[in-house]
Parts: sequence; C-alpha cells; structure tokens
Amino acid sequence: MTPSPPSWPNINTLWAHALVDELVRCGLKHVCISPGSRSTPLVVAFANHPDIEDISIIDERQAAFVALGLSLASQKPVALVCTSGTAAAHYYPAICEASSSGVPLIVLTADRPPNLHDAGAPQALDQTRFFGTHVRWFHQVAEPEPTAEKLRYLRALACRAFQRASGPNAGPVHLNLPFRKPLEPTALPEGHRDAVPPTLGTGDPMAMMGRPDNKPYLQTPPTHAVLDESTLDTIADLLANAERPLILAGADHRGNTYATALFELAQRLGAPLIAEPTSGVTRHAELQKPPLHFGDAVFGSSLLARCGQPDLVLRTGKAPLSWAAARAVRSWAHTTTILLSPDVAPPDPDHLAGWHLRANPRETLQALSRRLSLATERNSAPESPWLNAFQMAEARAEDSLRASLERFRLAQPDAPLTAPEIWNSLGELLPEGSALMISNSMPIRDVDAFMGRRRAPLQIFFNRGVNGIDGIVATGLGLALARREAGHQAPTIIALGDVALRHDLSALALARELDLPLLVLVLDNEGGAIFDELPIADFPDVHTRHFLTSARADITRSAPSTTRLHEATSPQTLASALKAFTHDPGFQVLVARSNREVDRDLRAALRADAATLIDHGFQGDLP
Amino acid sequence: MTPSPPSWPNINTLWAHALVDELVRCGLKHVCISPGSRSTPLVVAFANHPDIEDISIIDERQAAFVALGLSLASQKPVALVCTSGTAAAHYYPAICEASSSGVPLIVLTADRPPNLHDAGAPQALDQTRFFGTHVRWFHQVAEPEPTAEKLRYLRALACRAFQRASGPNAGPVHLNLPFRKPLEPTALPEGHRDAVPPTLGTGDPMAMMGRPDNKPYLQTPPTHAVLDESTLDTIADLLANAERPLILAGADHRGNTYATALFELAQRLGAPLIAEPTSGVTRHAELQKPPLHFGDAVFGSSLLARCGQPDLVLRTGKAPLSWAAARAVRSWAHTTTILLSPDVAPPDPDHLAGWHLRANPRETLQALSRRLSLATERNSAPESPWLNAFQMAEARAEDSLRASLERFRLAQPDAPLTAPEIWNSLGELLPEGSALMISNSMPIRDVDAFMGRRRAPLQIFFNRGVNGIDGIVATGLGLALARREAGHQAPTIIALGDVALRHDLSALALARELDLPLLVLVLDNEGGAIFDELPIADFPDVHTRHFLTSARADITRSAPSTTRLHEATSPQTLASALKAFTHDPGFQVLVARSNREVDRDLRAALRADAATLIDHGFQGDLP
Repeated sequence: MTPSPPSWPNINTLWAHALVDELVRCGLKHVCISPGSRSTPLVVAFANHPDIEDISIIDERQAAFVALGLSLASQKPVALVCTSGTAAAHYYPAICEASSSGVPLIVLTADRPPNLHDAGAPQALDQTRFFGTHVRWFHQVAEPEPTAEKLRYLRALACRAFQRASGPNAGPVHLNLPFRKPLEPTALPEGHRDAVPPTLGTGDPMAMMGRPDNKPYLQTPPTHAVLDESTLDTIADLLANAERPLILAGADHRGNTYATALFELAQRLGAPLIAEPTSGVTRHAELQKPPLHFGDAVFGSSLLARCGQPDLVLRTGKAPLSWAAARAVRSWAHTTTILLSPDVAPPDPDHLAGWHLRANPRETLQALSRRLSLATERNSAPESPWLNAFQMAEARAEDSLRASLERFRLAQPDAPLTAPEIWNSLGELLPEGSALMISNSMPIRDVDAFMGRRRAPLQIFFNRGVNGIDGIVATGLGLALARREAGHQAPTIIALGDVALRHDLSALALARELDLPLLVLVLDNEGGAIFDELPIADFPDVHTRHFLTSARADITRSAPSTTRLHEATSPQTLASALKAFTHDPGFQVLVARSNREVDRDLRAALRADAATLIDHGFQGDLP
Repeated sequence: MTPSPPSWPNINTLWAHALVDELVRCGLKHVCISPGSRSTPLVVAFANHPDIEDISIIDERQAAFVALGLSLASQKPVALVCTSGTAAAHYYPAICEASSSGVPLIVLTADRPPNLHDAGAPQALDQTRFFGTHVRWFHQVAEPEPTAEKLRYLRALACRAFQRASGPNAGPVHLNLPFRKPLEPTALPEGHRDAVPPTLGTGDPMAMMGRPDNKPYLQTPPTHAVLDESTLDTIADLLANAERPLILAGADHRGNTYATALFELAQRLGAPLIAEPTSGVTRHAELQKPPLHFGDAVFGSSLLARCGQPDLVLRTGKAPLSWAAARAVRSWAHTTTILLSPDVAPPDPDHLAGWHLRANPRETLQALSRRLSLATERNSAPESPWLNAFQMAEARAEDSLRASLERFRLAQPDAPLTAPEIWNSLGELLPEGSALMISNSMPIRDVDAFMGRRRAPLQIFFNRGVNGIDGIVATGLGLALARREAGHQAPTIIALGDVALRHDLSALALARELDLPLLVLVLDNEGGAIFDELPIADFPDVHTRHFLTSARADITRSAPSTTRLHEATSPQTLASALKAFTHDPGFQVLVARSNREVDRDLRAALRADAATLIDHGFQGDLP
C-alpha cells in the first residue's frame, strides 16, 4: 500500500526535500548551514527534517572546518549548504584539507539558473568545477523540474554523492544546485511551471517519495580493495625473510581500523612497531601492550648506527612526522620499503619505496599474518637482539624524558613554563577518553616527542592532509559537537599555538555560542616557534616580521570579551587550570605562556639526554 | 654485483631513458610517436629500447585512436608521444573515448620549460591539465635534473602512471614533460648544468639504472574490489526470490572476463540472459550453449505483454543499445534493477536502478552463484515457463530473420544490396577468430539486430565510451596492429558507414603504409542513415544538408588513389568480395552500396516479421 502523496507548495520545496530525504536515508546526520537567500529551499528542507542536526554558522570558512571536524569524529559524510556568490569560495581551505586527508564532505552550493549567469545578475559567478581537482566529484545539477524523470535523477544523484564522498577513496564532493524563484515554500497556482502537479505523486510515487522500504533510492554498497593471492605470497616472503624488519605507523585518522592487525603482524615478525601519536595505533583496547612510542628519541640515538639499518620497512599512514624519523627513512635507500596505504598517492616524498599496497590495510595485514603463521608454525617470533635494542631504547627514552623534565624544573624553578612541559602535562592530566585536536607546525611535533606515553587513552585528532594552521579551532568545534552528540562524557581540548589561534580567532565567538565542553589551550610563545628551528632564523629582520609574526597585541585581548580566559605561566598554574577545567568543562580558553628561546634549548637538551641514555644502553651486551 | 653504470651524453637522454625503462619494466609494449622537435629525448629513448614497438604516425589524432585500438586489443596501456603546441590537442577525441570506456593510455606530451611560457616563445601554450577531467591523472613533470633525488622521483612517477592507467578505474593518464635544449643525445662538457656527473651512477646506481632485479622501481600490485558478505547475502536473496529474473549483458570490452560466470549464474537462476554482440558474453569457449542473442526482436514482440514484466533485472556493461531494449528497460519502473559494473557512474540514464554493485564482476557473480547453489542445493534451476518463453522467442527470431531475408531477395532479386543483408553476410562469411571493429550509429545497431547468431566466434570491438563516429578507421588500425603482433591469423575488418569514413579519411593512407591484413568495409548509403530513423527526417531541408550530409562526391574518389578498392552492389558481389578478401587479406577497401529508403523499409519489415512469428508462438501453451 502506497501512502497518499503529500502536496508540495512548489518544485523547489519538493526538489530540496527529495535531495535531503535521500541523503538522510543514506546515513547523513549533520549539516552546517550558512545563511543566504538562494539556498533557501535547501535550508528549509534540512531544517524541517527530523533526523538532521542542522548547525547554523555564519562564516562559511568556519562552517567547512566544523563540518570537517564533525566528519572526522563521526566517520561519516557531513553536508555543507551555502548561497551563491563568494560564499562557496570560503569553503576552499577546508575542502583542500578534506581532499588530502580523505574526509567525506557533501558540499551543496546554491546557484542562480543559467539565464542569470554572464548577464550582470547580482551575486552570480561561475561555480562549476569551483574546487578544481580537490573534490572527488563535481556535478552541475539540473534546474528543478516537477517531473518524475528529473526527481528520479535527483534521488539517484543524492545517493551517488553520498557514496562518492564515503569512498572507496573518500573525500569531498560538490553539487552545484541552481534554483529559480520563489525560493520559499510559497504555494504556486496549479498549472504554474514550478507548481507540483497533483498527478505526480500518484503517477510515480517513487519519484516523489522515494523507495517504499525507506532504503536509499540507489544503493551502492561499500567495496574493499584486496590484493591477489600471489601478491600476498610475495609480500609475506619478503617479511618472513627480513632479519631486521621495522614497522612505522604514521598519521592516519582511520588507523584504529587496523591497529590490532598491525600489532599482531609486528609480534609475529618480531618487528619493532613505532607508532606516532597521530597513527591511531598508539593505544587500542584490543592491544595487550602498546607499540613503541619514542620514535623521535630512538631515531635521534645511535641505535641504527650500532644495529644496522632495517632491511625491511613496512609503513602505514602518512610519511613520518618527526624530523629524526624522516631523516632515518630518507637514509634507507637500499632497504626494501613497503607502503600499505589505500591512498592514491604513495606517502613517500623521497621516492624510495619499492611497493605500494593500495589495499584495505586491516585485511591485508590479517592475510599476511595468516601466511606468516602458516610458514613458521608459531604464533609469534622469538625476541631478537634487533627487537630488544628497540625495546631497550624505548624504555630509556621514557625514563630520560621524565628525569630530564624534572631535572630542568628542579634546576630552574623560576624558569618560564615550557612547551615540552605543557604537552607532557596534557598527557598526564587529561581524563581518559578526552579528545585532543592538535594543531600543526610545532604542537604536533612536540606531542610526538614530549607528551610521553599517556596514562589513559586519548583520542587524537589532527589536520594532516595539507598540515595547515588554519581552521584548527573550527575543526575542534566540529569534533566537540559530534562527541557531545555521541554521548562522550570526556571533554575536547584544542591545543594550538598563538599564530594558529590568530588565524581562526572568530571561531572563538562560535565556540561560545555552541557552549561545548571544550578547552582551547593556546601555547602563547609570541609567534611561530617552528621558524626558530628553520634556517630562516639566521636572517633576523625578515624572520621576526614575516615568520615569527610576533609583534602583535597580547592574544588575550583578541578573544571575545565574554570568553572565560585563564592563564598559566608555571607548571603549577597549568596543572591547576587543567584540573579546574576537567571538573567544570564549559567552554574556556587557557593561555599557557612560554618563551621560545627557553623552549628551543629545552627541546635540544631533552633530545640530547635521551640519545645519551639510549647510547649508554649499548655498552655491553650489543655490538 | 652492480654493473658499471653507462655514461649518458646529457640529462635529457638519461631522463627519457629512465622514464621509458620503467614503463617497459611495468609492461609497456607499444608507443605511437608523432614527429616534432621538443619530444626528441622521448622519441630517442623509445626508438632505442629493444622491447618497444614504436609506431610512427604523423597525425596525432590518428595516433591517439591507433593507440586506443592497440590498447583495446592488447588489454594493456599504450603510450603516446607528441611535441608541444597544438599537437596534444589532437589527442583529445581519443582521450575522451578512452576515459569514458576505461581504456588505459599513457599520454606523454613534451613541453617547453616555464621560462618559455607566457613569453612569446614559439609553439608554447599552457598544457597543464590540458585534457581536463578526461584523464585519470595529470602530473606536471619536473624539468630534467641530473640528481639521484629527481631520477628516483621520475622512476617512481613512470610506475605510478602505468598503474594509474591500468586501474582500478583504468583510463588515460597525462604526463606533461618539459625539456631544455639540447634535445638530442649530444654530449655536454663535464660541469655543464645538464651534463650527467660520472659520480651519479656509482653513488646511486638505482636512481640511474633502476632496481637491480629488473622489476619496476615502484610496484603497485593490482587490487580488486569485493563486496562484503552481508551485501552478497542480500543480493543473493533478491535473486533467489525473483520469479521472473532477467539478465541483460550490455557493451563491455572486458565482458569476456566474466562471460562464463554470468552464464553460470543465469543457469542457476533459470534466468534468460540476453547478450548484445558488444557484451563479450555472446560467444565464449567455456560456454556450452550461447546466451540469447535476439534481444531487439524479443523486446519488439509481445513477450513481455504476455508474460509480465521481469521482477528482477541484473545488468552488466553499458545501458542497452537496441532501441526496443532501451524502451523496455525504461518501462520497468517497479522492477528491482541491479547494475553490476565497476564503473564510477552507474550505466542507468533512466535512473531506475536500485543497486549499483561497483565490484569485480567475475568474483561477484561467482560468489552469488555459490550462495544460490547452497540455498537451493542444486546446480541449476528447472526450466520455467518464463525462461521457455524467451527461448521460444529467440528460436523464432532466428528463424524469422533468415526466412525474411530470403523472402525479400526472392521477391526482389534486383533490389539494391541492403544493410541487413550486408551485416548478415558478415556473420556468415567471416572466418573464425576474425576481429570486427564496428562503427557507431546504425552499423552497431544493425549488427545487434540483423547479423544473426554467427557460425564462428568473432572478436567484436567498438568505441562505446562516447559513441563517436570519429577515429573508427584509426582505432581499427590499432586493433589490426596488435593482432598481427600477437600472431592472430584471422583478419581484421573495420565496418563503418560512408559518413564515418569521411570523418577519418586520412587514416586510409596510414592503413596502406602499415600494410595490415585489414578490410575496411564501407556501407555507402550516401549519408547518415540513422537520421532517417529520427524525427528530424520530417524536416527535409535541414535533414538532407546537415544530417544526411549526402551531397558529396562518391566515396571511392576520396580514397588514396593507390588503395585496392572493391565495390559490392548485390549479395553475390558482396559474398565474392568477402571471400576474395579472406583468401588474400591484404589491406583493401570494400564499398558496399545500399539505398537508405530500401534499408529502412527492410529493417521495419524484418522487425515486424519477427514480432509476428514470436507472437504466434504464444498461441496455445502460454497465457
């Protein structure tokens, strides 16, 4: 039995409803809407749908980064809606990041019909292929038309957009949707070009109301890419024959899907597994013991000089973050390197890898483990001097970090708060299950090197597609929104430097509005600390003005005046501010002040201490 | 042991060598080269490589279609090389076809370095992203540089281009390669920016000479897309519960990879399988009996009106070719339609399908057959009235075609040769294993409807990506080249209309040069017969001048004067010309003359006869 079709005031209303209806059937939950007139039909349809969380954000640039964060946390496509004109252009930075990091977004830009283009109509510009190669799919949608033929097309189109965004090869998609007036749900007289004929719903109910079983109009079930048996045999042989295998897990926001499989393979191989904090492999409920954490210290030591280069490297995720790790990888020109990544581009800017396995990581790792298990008739490899060396280095790096930080503070109790202490405290003090959005540039490197092994699992988020310091706060807002909705109790922390905050200042106002359990932790060292580490620091004039960009007003004066602001200038005040936040986690900003020179010296000292302690470990039992 | 590195006169020579070396290691066999100066390094490298078949073709438009044909026949990527300027623009039509039909091409365009762009240098234009969205990948290659870093990049790049062309989602890729002078293998003095330092080969032999095991520098093994178990269960249930299942195999130049699996599934389901001549499923060594062939006649009859619509349709390949089949598909708005196609876009311009399975067809079909076999505990479904009706219709369509053609000729022995007779004769007379390249527009439709079931298997080729009548002869030349090289004895036949030949006339000169066992069969009906079948025929003035385009000189006067030309004006002269060609299959052109009005009337009569004979079959045993 078909229910009697609803009546619709005009085709725009029905058109936008059908689009939203199909997106929701496919699984869409969130839309970020920026105000404007041309997009009215879409806004009405989203706002009226009971299963949609519609978030209103004035600035499209923020909206797109919030959508990115929502998508990162929910692992589902998120929609964006804006009007015609420059509106869509503000989406571009977040779309570029989403494209590079494979985050699904469905970008719906309203447009004027063709007769209003190239003809002096206001707020009209060419929006076709507006985001170039940075979307997985662009489609110029037909003008709304009250026919079954076009409504079927639209319903299938919505499903295809959702599927293309979801992947394989997930990422943003762009539908450009022209609308004629009236844009509002205003009833039109029967016979009007844009009136919906009463016969449409009875004649073709599926076009008007979708499939009766409430399923998407066009289902495109997910597929996964698998390697053939002979390739798996070849790779398993390479692994089995390696004497000094090494596994590096780089940044990957889907790393949790294969963390266990990767750890199992490492155990079977007797291979050290070094996992960056952004790898999703660091902490995982199913892992009995965590993988190695202190890659930056290990690669900064003489371990490899003493034990030899690895003869086989398996890498997942992005290219290494730590400069020491990247240098090490770059030096392994004669090591068999296997990249396991479904990404189209091999994550290998040094062009040293011999293999790129573009398959589903979990299934590939499991298939390799099965083969290794059959080949060796045991479940895990024995401890080897090679693995022991890495484990020794890991333990010593951990000891060294703790001891050196304590020594520093004992020796200089009145020294300014330092970046390594800040990141280390975060690892110690944040409650289990907290989400940490880490900014690029120095923060993410400091977290890798100096946060230490955390006591409690954190969820770590990042924008490592193109590594911008833009949109960090807005991305974190999206994360916090998705987490609140999913019922996470633990708070969200956005950790960023003062330069990144200045780039996204207006997002603080949005954060207040949304009233989320959110801490924005600003490491204020008065400028871009990463440039102290780069050779440009030797050219002081241009360094100060255009790289550090430090000659500005105090960051606390730039925040909206009603923001709850805290400051930390010592380890004690930092700790008590963090504790206060975890007890009362409303939106607040914590400005942690450090000194760039002290930070730089401390980083160098911590690295030197770790290297020394690790190197001492080699006195005696290893060559 | 590393062999001592060869010395290179300059970086351009080494650069192009490294690129070609890697492409050959990946499996490249063919390159089509068009002359020009800027591409000299590439031309020298390809010409000097012992494992490359280098084909010289002056006109880039022809070259690209020849490459398309080579790729279609060899099922491997084929390279194209041209100079800078308008050269690459001529590739565009064939690239569009290759993109739409998923044919792998590696397009290597030479370019001038950046300092010669936007500065009045001759033969320089912006070649970046020159083919827009119609290539799977574009990469602007670095200027040649004699460093290990850049040579490793280049070697990996060549492998990636080969892999991106090969698929998943096979198609053309474009590398734009700037070169500085000297372009020739001229020795440069040591210390010159573009001299190759003697230390390069010893310091990093892999960058200069590639991997020592002769494997590609970067291996990206093929993957195949599989559905998860629950999706397969769902689809198998849909199939098992269908009472009137129907399978339609549309155009797919990879259809032979799943022909057997599709036939097995059809048998297990008791479903009629109607396969177009372009489906690759029509004839297959492993098939005990062929699938149904006469879809055009069956859908033109009252079968569906009598037996009911199918309640489940499984489609492979492109949307139906025959107008009757397309009309039938369009009418099944309430039928569960499943598209099995790895293509990104669902082949469903009517937007009626409920499922798009973007997985490997063979494996999906096999997995579904296994499930159906388990569910029913038997190997094939019993004969059903539904299946019997299609088999009866098929047998009667075959009888009708033969009888009606005989009747026509008996009644009008002096009537002009007709298009249906020409295609029917081809099916009867071509030797087993012949390749038939069929042009678009009417020829491919006539082959579908009137060639009949062939006595001997033919290989059928076509350009059904965007269905152009351009480049048909050149594509056929590529096929013939690949087939000669692969040792096929049976000849290649290019069958096209006079309008398509006029569009690709200059390819006849190339055909003579290459001296292939090739027949170009031109059906000369003085214009574009398809437009007689379209409503534009009711508007005679514009129809004659701009659609038929018939007011031209005789086609035989346009062929190069040295072409071996034959003419056929009756079934007897056609048969003897075809027989003569099969005995002496050098390159020749056979002009078969028909009359458009007689053809049109005969097509209508053949369809009416078939429908009548099929409909008579329903007197009695079926409702």
